[in-house]
Amino acid sequence: MTGASSALHTDKYELTMLAAALRDGTAHRRTTFELFGRRLPEGRRYGVVAGTKRFVDALARFVFDDDALSALADFLDRETLAYLADYRFTGDIDGYAEGELYFPGSPVLSVHGTFGECVILETLALSIFNHDTAIASAAARMVSAAEDRPLIEMGSRRTHERAAVAAARAAYLAGFSGSSNLEAQRRYGVPALGTSAHAFTLLHTTADGPDERAAFRAQVDALGVDTTLLVDTYDITAGVAAAVEVAGPRLGAVRIDSGDLGVLARQVRAQLDSLGATETQIVVSGDLDEFAIASLRAEPVDSFGVGTSLVTGSGAPTAGMVYKLAEVDGIPVEKRSTRKQSHGGRKEALRLAKPTGTIVEEVVHPHGRRPETPAGLHARVLTVPLVAGGEPVDDLDFAAARTRVADGLKSLPWDGLALSRGEPAIPTRLIPPGA
Amino acid sequence: MTGASSALHTDKYELTMLAAALRDGTAHRRTTFELFGRRLPEGRRYGVVAGTKRFVDALARFVFDDDALSALADFLDRETLAYLADYRFTGDIDGYAEGELYFPGSPVLSVHGTFGECVILETLALSIFNHDTAIASAAARMVSAAEDRPLIEMGSRRTHERAAVAAARAAYLAGFSGSSNLEAQRRYGVPALGTSAHAFTLLHTTADGPDERAAFRAQVDALGVDTTLLVDTYDITAGVAAAVEVAGPRLGAVRIDSGDLGVLARQVRAQLDSLGATETQIVVSGDLDEFAIASLRAEPVDSFGVGTSLVTGSGAPTAGMVYKLAEVDGIPVEKRSTRKQSHGGRKEALRLAKPTGTIVEEVVHPHGRRPETPAGLHARVLTVPLVAGGEPVDDLDFAAARTRVADGLKSLPWDGLALSRGEPAIPTRLIPPGA
Repeated sequence: MTGASSALHTDKYELTMLAAALRDGTAHRRTTFELFGRRLPEGRRYGVVAGTKRFVDALARFVFDDDALSALADFLDRETLAYLADYRFTGDIDGYAEGELYFPGSPVLSVHGTFGECVILETLALSIFNHDTAIASAAARMVSAAEDRPLIEMGSRRTHERAAVAAARAAYLAGFSGSSNLEAQRRYGVPALGTSAHAFTLLHTTADGPDERAAFRAQVDALGVDTTLLVDTYDITAGVAAAVEVAGPRLGAVRIDSGDLGVLARQVRAQLDSLGATETQIVVSGDLDEFAIASLRAEPVDSFGVGTSLVTGSGAPTAGMVYKLAEVDGIPVEKRSTRKQSHGGRKEALRLAKPTGTIVEEVVHPHGRRPETPAGLHARVLTVPLVAGGEPVDDLDFAAARTRVADGLKSLPWDGLALSRGEPAIPTRLIPPGA
Repeated sequence: MTGASSALHTDKYELTMLAAALRDGTAHRRTTFELFGRRLPEGRRYGVVAGTKRFVDALARFVFDDDALSALADFLDRETLAYLADYRFTGDIDGYAEGELYFPGSPVLSVHGTFGECVILETLALSIFNHDTAIASAAARMVSAAEDRPLIEMGSRRTHERAAVAAARAAYLAGFSGSSNLEAQRRYGVPALGTSAHAFTLLHTTADGPDERAAFRAQVDALGVDTTLLVDTYDITAGVAAAVEVAGPRLGAVRIDSGDLGVLARQVRAQLDSLGATETQIVVSGDLDEFAIASLRAEPVDSFGVGTSLVTGSGAPTAGMVYKLAEVDGIPVEKRSTRKQSHGGRKEALRLAKPTGTIVEEVVHPHGRRPETPAGLHARVLTVPLVAGGEPVDDLDFAAARTRVADGLKSLPWDGLALSRGEPAIPTRLIPPGA
């Protein structure tokens, strides 16, 4: 165990349910809980599973220490507190590997164990998957919109300070080149990027007025000519001229953070070229989302800085996944109230693809009853072991997960990458337990 | 210092700017940075400042320990690393007390100190204020929509696990009665609430089929008749009948989590009354936001459970505040590039109100130059000291902040509480430094 206990990232009702179930003996029934999205965020064509490794790591820290137990003593009986004091998850978890695409009804995570050990993981699992998946899913759209141009995540300031770290990780997972966030570098190895803000230029103001050149000179002295100079604090044309004058034609890049980015990128490109700075790159930022990025594809932009829209999931700040009891002692169970029907039974999934690799269907079937693969299609098993007997399996590698996203995007049918609102890129076929 | 270092919740560029400024000597210039929102989220009429206490607490943990320094050693020079090793914020911070309303341009926070000590707080300050303020601002609208009926925050599962704790705190600040989140109770004293989920009812399934009564009986045995039974797992009418049969007419409450909540609340109220359970309350939940809450005002609903819309800021997941250099060595500075004009100079603010207490104008004026109060109006100083010489001032009490929100909502002109899109409830008058 490393880091603080994650055990109180839990809703009170999970522990009161546990108390009641311990009392009537049902806490020891064998259960499967399933984490899935009933639908994708409105108009999205695919989602990207993210958070798997973070969840498995948090599971190892899901222990009720004395501090946690004392916080619970006012509403839990002695038996429940004793259960929690000894609690370690000892069950099995399988599901989609991190970085897989998912669709409505995809069984992203299946948690197997006693009711008691599974029910109290609901909030922790959902918080991590709903957040990280929302960010990775938005990020993947930006990555495909940018085609091969690098994207830098710089939205830490627009979200909770700890969510920012997970958001940087999710963006990198989805194909961003790096992030401004230093904690994400330390914790997850996400490359940290960034050079300067308007404050640095403004700082170089004296009684004689602003001195943009002094700011550029200080930055180049400290960081070298390969740095990125921010040229839009005052007048962009004057800023670009000053930047090249100070750094020379081997200046790494200029950044434009305001205005009509397409028009400005063209003007700045022409100006840089005319000054001999033909290799100097142009970085743009400022309220970019996947649509703005796509609209800049034809412009001389070399890389994109993305902030607010990334960390807020570009209109879908949560993935909306749920964690539902699907099976009790081998019996499929499901809620039947209005409009929230779930589908009982432990499940697994396959994804069918053409020989070209283009995917055509998600097949969700009862555990252990794999359907036949239709002729001419290839089936890939999506459900893999993640935790066995309470211990993480080996295959939770972050680099592999990153490759998985890139492969997933390549596997989509051509309209699956469209940014416009539409249906899920492939249909999901659900084979019910009784079939 | 308690808890982990907050120092790497920082964007890389803040430290590269510091390195460059240390090298050319400008790091020691006296500066004021200002945290403010250029606008409110679209159509909002007011915002609620939240995060102040969290920020001041995080500031005390903003120290670069060996672990942090080693994460920075690959891109910072020795002088900068030495500066960071000794870093403690020793400046002054003033601004709006937590829980105050704010409007476009309100100087929510002013940070005074050397450039070096102020510039590196940008991300930490913005992350905390942008998150907590977004949640509190949405929560306040829900509180006013619910009139005097209690609201329970239950959105932890829809946001990052740590953001969830801050969201519960912000919701409570804004007038919610409590939260499902146990860590928010432990850390901030937010009352923890909640009893049962559908999983608990489904758990009581045997080979003979579902047994809702057994689930209710187990819950009542463990938690008493004062508990809240969730009645919509199967058929609501049968669920209500079973609930009263098991718990008796002194059952605390029933919860409805799906369907047309207004229609169901009326049906369930009539049924409860007919069963003699006239004091049994009705709790509703399920995709509620301020508009849905307002639409249920005429229905027999006793309290509301709010999840997704609360933790995602009900359409505005970030407050969009910025942190800008406003003054260097006493000289006002401002960026002049397109559409992002800021206003230089250190500022303070007053709020003008009629004798009835209804507010009429926000006045933002240069530091130390308080304008005269117009005849017939009362002026309240909004800018208060928060940190002096690096040390928190005493007055950061959470209970007082909670009262401040309630008072602020009462002070709004009548159309300021409208949920529809509109202009800020009061205008902001900005008196520029030269005036």
